[in-house]
Amino acid sequence: MLKHGGNLGEMVHRLGLPEADWLDLSTGINPHGWEFPTPPPQCWYRLPDRQDGLAEAAAAYYGTEAVLPVPGSQAALAMLPWLRGHARVGVTAPGYAEHGAAWSRAGHDVIPLSASQLAGGAGTAFDVLVVINPNNPDGTYFEPQTLLEWRTAVASRGGWMIVDEAFVDTTPAYSLAPYCPLPGLIVLRSVGKFFGLAGMRIGFALGPDNLLQRLEEALGPWSVNGPARWVARQALADTGWQARMRTRLPAEAEHLHALLARHFDQRIVGTPLFRTVLTPRAAEVHEALAREAILVRLLDRQDGLRFGLPPDEAGLARLDAALRRISTPEPSRA
Amino acid sequence: MLKHGGNLGEMVHRLGLPEADWLDLSTGINPHGWEFPTPPPQCWYRLPDRQDGLAEAAAAYYGTEAVLPVPGSQAALAMLPWLRGHARVGVTAPGYAEHGAAWSRAGHDVIPLSASQLAGGAGTAFDVLVVINPNNPDGTYFEPQTLLEWRTAVASRGGWMIVDEAFVDTTPAYSLAPYCPLPGLIVLRSVGKFFGLAGMRIGFALGPDNLLQRLEEALGPWSVNGPARWVARQALADTGWQARMRTRLPAEAEHLHALLARHFDQRIVGTPLFRTVLTPRAAEVHEALAREAILVRLLDRQDGLRFGLPPDEAGLARLDAALRRISTPEPSRA
Repeated sequence: MLKHGGNLGEMVHRLGLPEADWLDLSTGINPHGWEFPTPPPQCWYRLPDRQDGLAEAAAAYYGTEAVLPVPGSQAALAMLPWLRGHARVGVTAPGYAEHGAAWSRAGHDVIPLSASQLAGGAGTAFDVLVVINPNNPDGTYFEPQTLLEWRTAVASRGGWMIVDEAFVDTTPAYSLAPYCPLPGLIVLRSVGKFFGLAGMRIGFALGPDNLLQRLEEALGPWSVNGPARWVARQALADTGWQARMRTRLPAEAEHLHALLARHFDQRIVGTPLFRTVLTPRAAEVHEALAREAILVRLLDRQDGLRFGLPPDEAGLARLDAALRRISTPEPSRA
Repeated sequence: MLKHGGNLGEMVHRLGLPEADWLDLSTGINPHGWEFPTPPPQCWYRLPDRQDGLAEAAAAYYGTEAVLPVPGSQAALAMLPWLRGHARVGVTAPGYAEHGAAWSRAGHDVIPLSASQLAGGAGTAFDVLVVINPNNPDGTYFEPQTLLEWRTAVASRGGWMIVDEAFVDTTPAYSLAPYCPLPGLIVLRSVGKFFGLAGMRIGFALGPDNLLQRLEEALGPWSVNGPARWVARQALADTGWQARMRTRLPAEAEHLHALLARHFDQRIVGTPLFRTVLTPRAAEVHEALAREAILVRLLDRQDGLRFGLPPDEAGLARLDAALRRISTPEPSRA
């Protein structure tokens, strides 16, 4: 399995510090999750029902009816590679590494593309192009107009462009969702990150009817659990909460940015849900923070650290103090 | 999409009777679902954690550590066909139709096998053999010793035997779970049916390490939602409740059986979670019951009806009265 953030259990086990003591900043999940009453018992006891209003709520939120609920955008991206014949696949890298892994597993040729290669238009030569917008972990934003041009080029040869918009909800102007359905365009949306409901496992795939239908059949009936459908339907409709978060999260990310800038000389990038520091000391700082029961995400190449938003002022202060101790080590006792 | 039970929303929509008025007997789900307190908020807000004790609870319940949580046995059976090259696949039919559909979708040759063909040993000639034990909807039980012999034959040629044990929990002596892991043997278990928690979407795949690892990678990280993991961990450990249900459900199924025998001359088959009547009047009775807001499962070939357990005496009485009216129609007013 690839490594990701969110593996707190493993760290608790390894370092022996009690779980409740940890400050988990290893994911890009909104720490102020949407709050909800307890789902009614029939959500648990009965098979999920397609006619429960979720489709309508999703259509309103995403601005298109071309939308399919999936058990997390992860489940959709893992199934899509099985739904077409052998392809040359250009995948944003570094980026969310499960995309490339999923296409490789299904026997396709996967070619990593850096953000700057993509920006140069290299992506349109592929049968399938996977773009992450904004990109995780580097926070690169691609302009919708550019992406739409790439989509035209790829689709003209029968190809697909998959845009993973897991982190786009705070900056909806960057989303291609309202342009769906367009031939060959598949947009993946997450509910876990912006709404802070990562444990629910629900997301959406947006795209042309025939593609969504094949994806739905491949995932099989009742793929999304009942409580998640019930909660998501309401979260997607809570436009007041969404508006508040679109102000609050960028502000908190700016605070985090300022804090990190006090401790690192390197450039800091990111989105309103995380900040990434590219530093050669990444592995060392990751381990030192873990010993203070602060978990952050060490990038796969060990060349940077991704910090999720601390949940409150106390969390910020704790991170600040820990980074201060790490930057200025106590004099050796030897 | 294939048709299944549990599509009450569609019927409510079509017939216009209020949802609360329906008696839904269209699934084989225990109507006395395991009751539980509200899962703690972190189940919803945080990514599911593999080290939450679920694996240990499942190992104790299934009698083997060779067990992988999956987002419903449906998700596992839909992914397995992608994990091997072109195969000739023998699939129990009639049976749960998603098996054959999933193998066909992935490009394999699917050959339907009746329970009597299987009993004659026809299954061992295939690269992959899918057995449903007990079978749904006909309630055929295969002896574990017979299945183990088939497994030996299939595995000796590098094949797989998949045993879907979605309905075995009331009769655990029939399960192959305790024999796992064995080369080529994959057992699929459901939590939805026996525990009555169909909305949660959690099940288990049991099998050899290398196969479970490939399945886990293909499904991707965090495939099972957090609340389902939290609830299932406790349900699997509640041996007192399980013992009570292993007495209660067969008794209720006998009551249902006796009731149906009063209205149908045909042979009645099934398991402790459902009874099936094979009757040429199936489509007509299905529609007549629907007009009384009672939903049962019309078999795909329209040659039978499957009845889930009514939740209480009132439900039994209502079904009885409806079947009486259907069998003895009022004199025509014409």
